[in-house]
Amino acid sequence: MPDGLKLGLAGLGTVGSGLLQLIGARDDTLETRAGRPIKVVAVSARNKRKKRSIDLSGLRFVQDPVALATDPEIDVFVELIGGEDGVAKDAVEAALRAGKHVVTANKALLAHHGASLAALAEKHGAALNFEAAVAGGIPVVKAIREGLQGNDITRVYGILNGTCNYILTRMERDGHSFADVLKEAQAQGYAEADPTFDIGGFDTAHKLALLTSLAFGTRTKFDGVYVEGIETIMPADIEAADDLGYRIKLLGVALRTDSGIEQRVHPTMVPKDTAIANVDGVANCVAIDGDFVGDVMLIGPGAGGGPTASAVMSDIIDIARGSLMPTFGIRAKHLRPYKKAQMRAHEGGYYIRLSVYDRSGAFAAIANRMAGHGISLQSIVQRAPRSETASKGRRGGKAAPVVMITHETTEAAVRKALAAIERDGHVDAKPQMIRIEKL
Amino acid sequence: MPDGLKLGLAGLGTVGSGLLQLIGARDDTLETRAGRPIKVVAVSARNKRKKRSIDLSGLRFVQDPVALATDPEIDVFVELIGGEDGVAKDAVEAALRAGKHVVTANKALLAHHGASLAALAEKHGAALNFEAAVAGGIPVVKAIREGLQGNDITRVYGILNGTCNYILTRMERDGHSFADVLKEAQAQGYAEADPTFDIGGFDTAHKLALLTSLAFGTRTKFDGVYVEGIETIMPADIEAADDLGYRIKLLGVALRTDSGIEQRVHPTMVPKDTAIANVDGVANCVAIDGDFVGDVMLIGPGAGGGPTASAVMSDIIDIARGSLMPTFGIRAKHLRPYKKAQMRAHEGGYYIRLSVYDRSGAFAAIANRMAGHGISLQSIVQRAPRSETASKGRRGGKAAPVVMITHETTEAAVRKALAAIERDGHVDAKPQMIRIEKL
Repeated sequence: MPDGLKLGLAGLGTVGSGLLQLIGARDDTLETRAGRPIKVVAVSARNKRKKRSIDLSGLRFVQDPVALATDPEIDVFVELIGGEDGVAKDAVEAALRAGKHVVTANKALLAHHGASLAALAEKHGAALNFEAAVAGGIPVVKAIREGLQGNDITRVYGILNGTCNYILTRMERDGHSFADVLKEAQAQGYAEADPTFDIGGFDTAHKLALLTSLAFGTRTKFDGVYVEGIETIMPADIEAADDLGYRIKLLGVALRTDSGIEQRVHPTMVPKDTAIANVDGVANCVAIDGDFVGDVMLIGPGAGGGPTASAVMSDIIDIARGSLMPTFGIRAKHLRPYKKAQMRAHEGGYYIRLSVYDRSGAFAAIANRMAGHGISLQSIVQRAPRSETASKGRRGGKAAPVVMITHETTEAAVRKALAAIERDGHVDAKPQMIRIEKL
Repeated sequence: MPDGLKLGLAGLGTVGSGLLQLIGARDDTLETRAGRPIKVVAVSARNKRKKRSIDLSGLRFVQDPVALATDPEIDVFVELIGGEDGVAKDAVEAALRAGKHVVTANKALLAHHGASLAALAEKHGAALNFEAAVAGGIPVVKAIREGLQGNDITRVYGILNGTCNYILTRMERDGHSFADVLKEAQAQGYAEADPTFDIGGFDTAHKLALLTSLAFGTRTKFDGVYVEGIETIMPADIEAADDLGYRIKLLGVALRTDSGIEQRVHPTMVPKDTAIANVDGVANCVAIDGDFVGDVMLIGPGAGGGPTASAVMSDIIDIARGSLMPTFGIRAKHLRPYKKAQMRAHEGGYYIRLSVYDRSGAFAAIANRMAGHGISLQSIVQRAPRSETASKGRRGGKAAPVVMITHETTEAAVRKALAAIERDGHVDAKPQMIRIEKL
């Protein structure tokens, strides 16, 4: 039996506590699976004396995470502090420089510094594992980095933020407004007091940037991600989507195009009878399209102490077993520079909702604008609002919602047509535009 | 750069050809990902001269797979012959004894001889990888063996046979009978000329036996699997399920109970708005319930040359990278004997369809039999047949379908109640009974 693997754990929040609980619950089965004992020997947290549900007796406490990262007793530094810079980054770098393996759940850190940290890990012969940073408990990093390595991947996409998915699911089920559901989610602890990071799509973008590097072998490039959140989704959209056989999900999508790699986060219409449309509540999912395997999808809990601890533990067990992979599946020097795809070239169908003044010629003017930009319509419906909330968009005057589904077209054409329609003055609110993803 | 990894490939059917195509399509990206070149050096097939779409020039041909398995030039023996015994088993054993790593897609072989082959592999320091043997291209072996190793798994289940899922999907969409859809599937090559192995549930059972060993760390025990196929599913059942908000899927289910491990394959009702209900056509899926991660599901192509080659390739790349795992995730000596759960103790809801003679007292007699066995009903509906096919169960006389959904009860109680109802003589055909799985 080889020596035990000794862990230093920085961060005792939900995930850190979950990890200690998991290790406590497993005992010798963990040793059987990992092929050697696994033991936490020291921990670090901002506040040593904070009351915790977990027992820290027998664990050495190190105030400074950077000191813990280079502690001679530890083999693996488990970073559960969070944050793209600051102490988390300092500690991870210090650990790697000291040749310690690092396991982290820190998506922000890797989305911003992934390529340089991967190179640093490699230089010092250390692993830098981050299963927990994408889609919580779903073993998607392993699936792409190892399980689907035979494939050239053409697209990776998914529901990557549980808060947004919970809000959209509740809006759909209860017909409540975005603001009402958000307030309720905050009260229940599913959304932060400042929810911008989640609902604005930025958390999804961090995770997408990591999936992109894994899938396409490119250097992580967070600012290459186009980001739209779910703030503008109205019950009228959800109702119209439902009538048309769709649901609305916030997706992160990365795909290889002729001009480069496209990374985008935005609300998306998905057909109701697909698996992804039925990923509800706080669940996440990731789909990977490979040239030989076809389309694979993984669904599961995207956050929370238990699921995230499960992911952290799988990274630790890999290290215990001596299975050390390059961070993004290939050596850091082989990661290609990220080349952004040409903007707005994306082709697909679009859902458009307009709030149109009820006057003669308005309908014709709109139809002409669409035709003038080469956009053909699959359907156009003037809808009577089904619920009170559906009429909220109006600013007085007689306006009624008009919902259009376009045939495949480019985003540039849609944007130009909508700008022209707004200028024409027949609508009383900013047009709503939601992409329809081909699944 | 380490030496290249040399493969001997036995079996040039759909999967073998797919693998050669994949390797041909990849070239140096494969080397980048695997960290070393990967090369097929010799092949074996029943008929050397058969016309094939793939180019075999430059590959040494070895007539006897067993000779290929121990060929001094090869590092890895890739067994794509199939069959639980015979030459496939001889060749795999010979390769392992010679210390060659083995990659196989052979579910029958492993379902019957998994534990002893795993021990043999371990004894000789070789890997025995079988990602392609379960759920085709879905990287589920890796997910359980590595990605979810932090968890104690309580249940694993899935749609594991594409032929059955295709037939059930078509029956649902088109309202055709089982026999008609089967005939059509055979014509299109989705079902074998002798379809028993697929539609009888045996292929699902093979795969389930492997999932059980992976999930619960027990020795594979194929004859511990209870097996029911889809032959008895009638359009009337599919229609009734639809009305009640369910779809019917053939599931393999393994779960840990107090009395041991339950392995069963049978048609199952799943709620329409779940992801698994929307796994359609030839797709497969596997769900894993872990104590820390919660419920994870993987969906993807369960068969075919491309997806299976993708799975075989990931096993080969693992070996190339030096990532050698015990076959079932833990050392063979740690695999526990399989202890079968007490029969018929399974608790759950049941769907029951009876073809009841239209005479006074029949309804009451049935209700009394159910009550007499402690079964309470969630709903009972006397249905007017929606289609011609729904009335096929009748043998003349006036009989009408009665559909019942029970509250949670045991299978033993349901079986006893149905036997009594048959004896009472109020029904004109064998009762249909389909389990409702808690998801």
